[in-house]
Amino acid sequence: MKLAIDAMGGDYAPEQIVKGVELARDQYPDIEFLLFGQTEKITPFLKSDQRIKIMQADEVIEMGDEPVRAIRRKKQSSIVLAAQAVKNGEADAFFSAGNTGAVLAAGLLIIGRIKGIDRPGLTTTMPVITKDDQDSFVMLDVGANADTKPANLVQYAIMGKYYAESVMHVKNPRIGLLNNGTEADKGDKVHREVHDLLEQEDELNFVGNVESRELLNGVADVVVTDGFAGNAVLKSIEGTALSMLKLLKTSIMNSGVSGKLGALMLKNAFGQVKAKMDYSQHGGAVLLGIKAPVVKTHGSSKADTIFNTIGQIKTMIDTGSVQNVITYFSEQNVKEETPAE
Amino acid sequence: MKLAIDAMGGDYAPEQIVKGVELARDQYPDIEFLLFGQTEKITPFLKSDQRIKIMQADEVIEMGDEPVRAIRRKKQSSIVLAAQAVKNGEADAFFSAGNTGAVLAAGLLIIGRIKGIDRPGLTTTMPVITKDDQDSFVMLDVGANADTKPANLVQYAIMGKYYAESVMHVKNPRIGLLNNGTEADKGDKVHREVHDLLEQEDELNFVGNVESRELLNGVADVVVTDGFAGNAVLKSIEGTALSMLKLLKTSIMNSGVSGKLGALMLKNAFGQVKAKMDYSQHGGAVLLGIKAPVVKTHGSSKADTIFNTIGQIKTMIDTGSVQNVITYFSEQNVKEETPAE
Repeated sequence: MKLAIDAMGGDYAPEQIVKGVELARDQYPDIEFLLFGQTEKITPFLKSDQRIKIMQADEVIEMGDEPVRAIRRKKQSSIVLAAQAVKNGEADAFFSAGNTGAVLAAGLLIIGRIKGIDRPGLTTTMPVITKDDQDSFVMLDVGANADTKPANLVQYAIMGKYYAESVMHVKNPRIGLLNNGTEADKGDKVHREVHDLLEQEDELNFVGNVESRELLNGVADVVVTDGFAGNAVLKSIEGTALSMLKLLKTSIMNSGVSGKLGALMLKNAFGQVKAKMDYSQHGGAVLLGIKAPVVKTHGSSKADTIFNTIGQIKTMIDTGSVQNVITYFSEQNVKEETPAE
Repeated sequence: MKLAIDAMGGDYAPEQIVKGVELARDQYPDIEFLLFGQTEKITPFLKSDQRIKIMQADEVIEMGDEPVRAIRRKKQSSIVLAAQAVKNGEADAFFSAGNTGAVLAAGLLIIGRIKGIDRPGLTTTMPVITKDDQDSFVMLDVGANADTKPANLVQYAIMGKYYAESVMHVKNPRIGLLNNGTEADKGDKVHREVHDLLEQEDELNFVGNVESRELLNGVADVVVTDGFAGNAVLKSIEGTALSMLKLLKTSIMNSGVSGKLGALMLKNAFGQVKAKMDYSQHGGAVLLGIKAPVVKTHGSSKADTIFNTIGQIKTMIDTGSVQNVITYFSEQNVKEETPAE
């Protein structure tokens, strides 16, 4: 398989991107890498070009650039050229740690939507931290679309189901609808309608409404939400975890010698907590609903996250996770176009 | 002042309600308490009836009752009778730890909205945990209304401002709009419109869009949000904090003797973290936009939370926080009704 990778995106590009790619190259002998960016900036960090081909891209889309305009104007940027390589069949997936909006726009406008999908959904894997037999769950949409219609959320549920089955190896994943109460009649008009629509989907193991309070406790395998609330919930969880760790650190620093000694003795326990809360081990966020895997990691990603994300993309390709969605929606189209007897 | 208190609501009613009321009675000599509920259940827990009058209520609205129907059918319930006492001028505020929906419905349907307010907003005080000079912030709406229009959010901002000034003693409080990015054009159609409307309000110290990631870091004094996202964010913060504390506890229990010794040495530091995350010290959630304070605490509230919440209600009454909102909106009405010269 071939991956099209933006070498210029993220706070530590290109050095950490190149390092992560080399880690993955050494681990996965079946992957070839197309590394898009400014050759003279990439070369100094590249130890060996075995299975890594640098694809010159003169321009860089910056973090502050307006996404759609950047995609249209910076035709020689690493993001645009990497996405075009996927569109042209020269690569199987597109991966960047750069400008999120530009990555999403490149996926949508260059690679294109799967037939039958109205809005792709940005999908993130989150940790389950208090349940022994569940490691993680996926949530979508976490910010690709702010204005969402009921049909979009039903499509998110179907795409999330295939993703959880393929990439997380969960059989018959439990689908929950994020809502502000577990009762069927909770939420605004859109969410009440989505609840009813999801109940009618025989292929889905719909477990009903779920509350954000229970997400880290593993209340579902796939959490379906509109991009506005999903983004707010994702950032609340991240922010609360970070703020609590910071507060704990400050409290320990202020608690004298015995506190510091205590912290030393608890080093393992603290390590476990940090490791569980570290999403980067689960890879990046995937824009589901595009004809090929389009994956975005945090701008702050370093080599290990880049490496983990490449592993995630490899699993997506190996399991045909995108193809499963394409097949499902093409069968739906056939059903709709064939008149009932 | 006189408070109408539902003695029958919450998991530990009436015992912990009565105990909390007695703590408050002993602390605040200027408060008289009307305690609504079943006399024979309340009396066993009441040490002294000094400034506490039991008001017999034959019925109880249960946690599972459908709110609006319960308010209409259980006319002799403690919630309905307590709210009526406020409506009739026999008490200055209404407080319950019972069925949230029923408390909100009683506020709205029995006590009634302030003229000029279309939708009251449920307002909660949250901790700021990583900033030395800010202890807390308020967020509204956290769940009174799932379907929200731009004008509602502007009214939340104004009510939040008066609340923060009166009860939290913050001068010219910073108002932030919860959104999925800080740029002015972020969010769905409703949030973009609200951003523009808030920018035009000269009386508000509007600091722009804020992200849920930054709330506990004190990015604003008043966070304005629609009830759907606000509820999801509130529950995400609560859930993440609880899950992390649970995970930390499990990790410590599994880390052998040195881990347990370490935990002992860190007891003070852990205590500080727990105390900071404990919202109950800030009292209950207030339904702002009603003609009198209507306050709801968690169903799991014990005597100390009941006591803290009564302190919060006393501050609301002492500072005229509801009256300030009534005055503001009546002046707005006069402005609108007076033709410009």
